[in-house]
Amino acid sequence: MSQAARERSQISVAEIAQRARAASRSLARLSGEARNEILTRAAQALEDASARILDANEKDRRAAEAAVREGTLSTSMLARLRVDQGGVAEMAERVRGVARLPDPLGRVLAATELDEGLVLCKETCALGVVGIIFESRPDVIPQVASLALKSANAVILKGGAEAAHTNEALVAIWRECLREFPGVPAEAIWLLEGREQATELLSCERDVDLIIPRGSRELVEFVARNSRVPVLGHGEGICHVYVDRAADMGKALAVAYDAKVQYPAVCNAAETLLVHREIARDFLPRMARRMGEAGVELRGDAQTAAILSEAGIQIVPATESDWATEYSALILSVKVAEDLDAAIEHINRFGSRHTEAIVTEDAAAAERFMNEVDAAGVYQNASTRFADGFRYGFGAELGVSTNKLHARGPMGLDGLVTYKFKLRGDGHTVTEYAGGNKKFTHRDISDMRGRESGSRKAPRS
Amino acid sequence: MSQAARERSQISVAEIAQRARAASRSLARLSGEARNEILTRAAQALEDASARILDANEKDRRAAEAAVREGTLSTSMLARLRVDQGGVAEMAERVRGVARLPDPLGRVLAATELDEGLVLCKETCALGVVGIIFESRPDVIPQVASLALKSANAVILKGGAEAAHTNEALVAIWRECLREFPGVPAEAIWLLEGREQATELLSCERDVDLIIPRGSRELVEFVARNSRVPVLGHGEGICHVYVDRAADMGKALAVAYDAKVQYPAVCNAAETLLVHREIARDFLPRMARRMGEAGVELRGDAQTAAILSEAGIQIVPATESDWATEYSALILSVKVAEDLDAAIEHINRFGSRHTEAIVTEDAAAAERFMNEVDAAGVYQNASTRFADGFRYGFGAELGVSTNKLHARGPMGLDGLVTYKFKLRGDGHTVTEYAGGNKKFTHRDISDMRGRESGSRKAPRS
Repeated sequence: MSQAARERSQISVAEIAQRARAASRSLARLSGEARNEILTRAAQALEDASARILDANEKDRRAAEAAVREGTLSTSMLARLRVDQGGVAEMAERVRGVARLPDPLGRVLAATELDEGLVLCKETCALGVVGIIFESRPDVIPQVASLALKSANAVILKGGAEAAHTNEALVAIWRECLREFPGVPAEAIWLLEGREQATELLSCERDVDLIIPRGSRELVEFVARNSRVPVLGHGEGICHVYVDRAADMGKALAVAYDAKVQYPAVCNAAETLLVHREIARDFLPRMARRMGEAGVELRGDAQTAAILSEAGIQIVPATESDWATEYSALILSVKVAEDLDAAIEHINRFGSRHTEAIVTEDAAAAERFMNEVDAAGVYQNASTRFADGFRYGFGAELGVSTNKLHARGPMGLDGLVTYKFKLRGDGHTVTEYAGGNKKFTHRDISDMRGRESGSRKAPRS
Repeated sequence: MSQAARERSQISVAEIAQRARAASRSLARLSGEARNEILTRAAQALEDASARILDANEKDRRAAEAAVREGTLSTSMLARLRVDQGGVAEMAERVRGVARLPDPLGRVLAATELDEGLVLCKETCALGVVGIIFESRPDVIPQVASLALKSANAVILKGGAEAAHTNEALVAIWRECLREFPGVPAEAIWLLEGREQATELLSCERDVDLIIPRGSRELVEFVARNSRVPVLGHGEGICHVYVDRAADMGKALAVAYDAKVQYPAVCNAAETLLVHREIARDFLPRMARRMGEAGVELRGDAQTAAILSEAGIQIVPATESDWATEYSALILSVKVAEDLDAAIEHINRFGSRHTEAIVTEDAAAAERFMNEVDAAGVYQNASTRFADGFRYGFGAELGVSTNKLHARGPMGLDGLVTYKFKLRGDGHTVTEYAGGNKKFTHRDISDMRGRESGSRKAPRS
């Protein structure tokens, strides 16, 4: 245990949350320029400390390699743990990218003149304190820390034991950087250790505003079930590609293949392919051959199996549980859909509300699919694999939410801000309105306030 | 038990939630014009059925009057239960007001060109199914039903037993109105009965997207603690008025008086008055006399008590628990604050994050207060009693949220919508970008899309 960890273990998580809350209030007083200056410095600090990060990472990797040999750690975990020189440079570059994003705070979302001299503004502000529980990948730390600082949130991180040294080094470097700035609290970032501390964090509902679990379905479900703090995340990703009768065959093959094969272990990969009855005979054999070349195991319903069998391709029959399974592997369940309605119904029944795609040239069918499918992302003629904060242009990804409240889909800075209503009057009382002496005007002055206050919502570049 | 209630009691709440989910999908297919047409008709239907509503209400009132005599119901509950001819007219008028609001659905919140031919739109859509658990006031039903229909959400209502006949009549009238429109599902609105059904609703997390409890703190806390469905609401309203050293004396007296006296039983009334040390000697005696005339009991800290005692006014000493108490009555705790920081700290410690006011002519002090106080509403020189959906110009109020995620403060239609990401491509795959063949442009085209699609966000009138 490092010295920092020893110190930390002497204070309770509740105390850590309280100190993070106090730090968040200091952060909220910093200007956008000041927050960006710290981010730019933090990027430099990461590069300057790259030897220290690589040393720490080597310790973690040596232990992890032993664990892989003993069979207690997967090789994919080991792979995701690795940080090299290029990795540090990329971390720094991403922190600089976050500094370049427009300020998410103080944006006037709406402004209404309630009456003469009484103006209501709905304005974005920081959530306060955010907890992130994640596994393996240490690059989550600079990503999340930079998004949190950009939005004036304090952050409490809980990483996996396998990356303890790397995580410790990254948080220490971040804290040292914060300390260089007078009035900026180093306690704006914390690193917890062990499952016990993570569990304690879940009951700090007074001082933690949001918890984002990033990791296995088991981790996310444990957090969601046991937390008194609001949770945003996604337990599973059961995504579908629906090939409509009006699909372009080339696009359908490309999108389905990419969605399944490009990176099957992640949540936005497709698990089930739905094919319109009228196109099934044309599409299925070509699809099956292409998937077969990539080593994809197909599990089909009776119609799919029959059509493929006629084409000389034998596949595994799908059972009911296949439709509800996230394989996270080169396995794809396939079903023939009677029509668009049947496809939408299947997806709304089995989908995890993550990301769903239709391949079609029929604009009306696409419109219906995109309106009626209940998911964070609804795509036409594009692979479900695009569901990602970087690909969406958010600069960094905080996580992916399949919740419907607050942030939905890949979350960037939007996930870390809320709003407050600011009302400015001149001694106004409700009595005057209740008595009928005065009447509300309720005039929308959003455009005016936007101009006046130089609304900070700049275009993304 | 009415026939409708008997029918309902034969199906489980889980089944009701499933049917509401199906109904919500039909609602989502209606155009904004169609939803407004139904709302206008529903307003008329309420007026046409006013005799039926008043009859039902009389039954409820007769039973309630007996309960009051027996001491099992409060007179305020009885008062809030009453619906008269004018009440029905107001219900109808408010439904028409909701029809006139801009369409909350299909609004493009952001649009980004990810690359040529690949466009991402963040667009508002309905949540789906919303549960409302409320007490006494039957006018909640047309208010909530109209907000839900306007935003294409199905709604499951659970009212109090004391208003059972009135609630039943209102829901029946609403359903009859829906049935007049082909393709519009009457199952878009449901009324539950009894605590058991309400409790069942809390575990329908697959088919209910949001639950809003409106009522006592006990009700809200029970729901928040036991629900697997996300909950928005407020448990208590501990609101403060802080009289700064730069306060205008007249405004301070008016705002503090209004915030405490105008309607003390509600959540946005003030419970604690904080007074800057430098102004206390001037302000406190005048405030105490004015509050005294209205019959307000003051409970002060030692400094307040000493200052008032010198002015010949004896008050009750406040204990620590006073700062954490929502009196909902003509009682006010009073404390002298060393400075602005002390006031902000007190509010952030004891406030319920509902609505907080500063009275000051000092713009810098107001700015700091409004930025650093952690609450849904932060006011300068205005009474906390303004925290209300109608006063904010939302047309109707769904409830008040002290949560930070999703909707905060008084909630109108915004509380009932979420968004989805719509991505339109031309067969785009991630492989091309991962391999470096293609690069993202991430061009913000929000302004263009707003114009093209005739963004439906019209100004509020």
